[in-house]
Amino acid sequence: MVRANEDYLKLPGSYLFSTVARKQREYAAAHPEAKIIRLSIGDVTQPLAPVIVEALHRAVDEMAQTETFRGYAPDLGYAFLRNTVAEHDYKARGCEISADEIFISDGAKGDCGNIQEIFAKECKVAVCDPVYPVYVDTNVMAGRAGNYDAQSGTWSEVIYMPCTAEYGFAPQLPKEVPDIIYLCFPNNPTGATITKEQLQAWVDYANQNGAVIIYDAAYEAYISEEDVPHSIYECEGARECAIEIRSFSKNAGFTGVRLGYTVIPKGLKADGTELHGLWARRHGTKYNGAPYIVQRAGEAVYTAEGQAQLKEQVAYYMKNAAYIRQGLAEAGYTVSGGVNAPYIWLQTPEGMSSWDFFDRLLEKANVVGTPGSGFGPSGEHYFRLTAFGRYEDTVEAIRRIREM
Amino acid sequence: MVRANEDYLKLPGSYLFSTVARKQREYAAAHPEAKIIRLSIGDVTQPLAPVIVEALHRAVDEMAQTETFRGYAPDLGYAFLRNTVAEHDYKARGCEISADEIFISDGAKGDCGNIQEIFAKECKVAVCDPVYPVYVDTNVMAGRAGNYDAQSGTWSEVIYMPCTAEYGFAPQLPKEVPDIIYLCFPNNPTGATITKEQLQAWVDYANQNGAVIIYDAAYEAYISEEDVPHSIYECEGARECAIEIRSFSKNAGFTGVRLGYTVIPKGLKADGTELHGLWARRHGTKYNGAPYIVQRAGEAVYTAEGQAQLKEQVAYYMKNAAYIRQGLAEAGYTVSGGVNAPYIWLQTPEGMSSWDFFDRLLEKANVVGTPGSGFGPSGEHYFRLTAFGRYEDTVEAIRRIREM
Repeated sequence: MVRANEDYLKLPGSYLFSTVARKQREYAAAHPEAKIIRLSIGDVTQPLAPVIVEALHRAVDEMAQTETFRGYAPDLGYAFLRNTVAEHDYKARGCEISADEIFISDGAKGDCGNIQEIFAKECKVAVCDPVYPVYVDTNVMAGRAGNYDAQSGTWSEVIYMPCTAEYGFAPQLPKEVPDIIYLCFPNNPTGATITKEQLQAWVDYANQNGAVIIYDAAYEAYISEEDVPHSIYECEGARECAIEIRSFSKNAGFTGVRLGYTVIPKGLKADGTELHGLWARRHGTKYNGAPYIVQRAGEAVYTAEGQAQLKEQVAYYMKNAAYIRQGLAEAGYTVSGGVNAPYIWLQTPEGMSSWDFFDRLLEKANVVGTPGSGFGPSGEHYFRLTAFGRYEDTVEAIRRIREM
Repeated sequence: MVRANEDYLKLPGSYLFSTVARKQREYAAAHPEAKIIRLSIGDVTQPLAPVIVEALHRAVDEMAQTETFRGYAPDLGYAFLRNTVAEHDYKARGCEISADEIFISDGAKGDCGNIQEIFAKECKVAVCDPVYPVYVDTNVMAGRAGNYDAQSGTWSEVIYMPCTAEYGFAPQLPKEVPDIIYLCFPNNPTGATITKEQLQAWVDYANQNGAVIIYDAAYEAYISEEDVPHSIYECEGARECAIEIRSFSKNAGFTGVRLGYTVIPKGLKADGTELHGLWARRHGTKYNGAPYIVQRAGEAVYTAEGQAQLKEQVAYYMKNAAYIRQGLAEAGYTVSGGVNAPYIWLQTPEGMSSWDFFDRLLEKANVVGTPGSGFGPSGEHYFRLTAFGRYEDTVEAIRRIREM
């Protein structure tokens, strides 16, 4: 008799953002007159930049001619894109990463979710708390997280690293030594960053303890301050302990276009086994490459024209971030983030629970945000707003919140 | 200390098609003058049909305007595509499948590889022999296949269903009852099909034994004969035991565009657990949807214009198939397939091994095919040629093989 994967059944309720979307839908159905503003999910709203649109059209035309038609892409991505990424995202920053250490994919979410597969089931995972739910949920589905304790909102076999206001929302080294450490900076959901020195300490810790860091740098384009590392490979020794995951979603507006990549340095080992070959095997066996036209669009991101156009796009969102941050601070909220990241992390007023604040914001201001507690127990009494809305909507949302 | 997934390490050598590609590269490097013709991997060569090109351009233009820009797609696919699929691929054939039972993805290979995740690790898997390697390899990587026996080329915990000439390359019911049964018709690699009555027997067998059938119908568009089922849901009781996987790669030339879908009927259960919800959870947690522009291209496939243009494309490849089949038969080869499928399955001459014949074909005719033994032990002494080449190349390849 066939049986289902019981580890899937351990997951309580649905994916955080599905719940947020459902609550919004229900409210909208009950209040059809409400003009709801959505500052919840990290989804971009600005159209694709002209240089990307041109690249897409050009690639589509190539697909229309026998001579230039492209079938299956190379498993690991086209050389034109891998070379470009190696040059611009790494060599230009002094990081020693070569094109054949870069695996092109259809986005960072998939890579973040699938990467755990190449590790043994017995590996102990450490995550920041609060945290992007994908890291935890995919380890639950793989049977690596133990059992859920509804009271504390934690999994018995996961090591949580609380990121609290006290330490600027940076994680502290855990008491128990983990095998796999998920880090995300600039951080989702808190919008916090760490300095190069702080990140170096994590790299040293991983190397000393035989751990691997999975470094999610999806929000790298939003870094505005000096001394904030753009890549973990800026740190010494990172080639020996770190995997880096990047996205085109937030720097180039590709949430609906789908493109990302993962870096696994050759020589990076887990107890003697090279991880590069394992991930290559996964790509070759379970994946058929990102679409040719999308890889050409990704290439256009790195042209001088592309960089100029996308700098404007990032600036647009960061203007929103500054507006939200300042508006809420003026209204008496305790806020952080929004300087090197498109997320604003605010403390709920009067010790309200995150979900109570969610309901209040939806009802009183018709604004949808994301409850901090959905990202982990240390997110309770916090709330995330994103800067990815349109400017006019963002201004209107803050006006309503201030009048609440 | 971090450790790698040891199940990955059990896989001998690399993915079949990577090995084929490597051998081809090496030969080409040593013989730069050779005009190699590639009839190995099932990759299309005809450009995208005009109606699809138009749909792509239109969708790209939408992405360039704030008002029509689309960010994250719905996890399970856009309603416009799911509705169209339900209408054309199912309702029109009398199959009772609704839009919300269809999960849009970036292709059948990923779905074929990932679907095993929603089942318990202890489930026993049955596959045809020969078989598309993805079914077996992904179960190996999940720890479900036991150990490899290099001598026999089989895995200790996998149930093999030999598909031999004696039964027209159709699998016979296995002696040991499996929990999960992978079936692919029209078949890759043999090009064989089974009748509706034969498929009904499998559905009945699965329902009697509490097994789930994973039905890969990627080559459905190539069916030319009556009484060959296009979908497993044409069989009575299939909603209670079958998952169906479909692709846009072969019917619409999307190998480099990436689009597919999986059907999981609501109510389909594994020992009491609804599988629909589990797959939805996987989509929501590890995937972010197929690109909007690609989903619009998929929709165009189903327009009257699209259907007419793609019928021509399929006919082009099937002309190749008939040419290969007839040419080889005339040259004295024992051949099958090529009537309801774009694959020709030939017996190697004089009892040569599949890889010896591969080498001989590459050296003497500069033609690349796929060794039957790469698909499983019963594929030994067989060889696969695909009809996806250009017509002129196909004619030239057959000329060379006949003169060999």
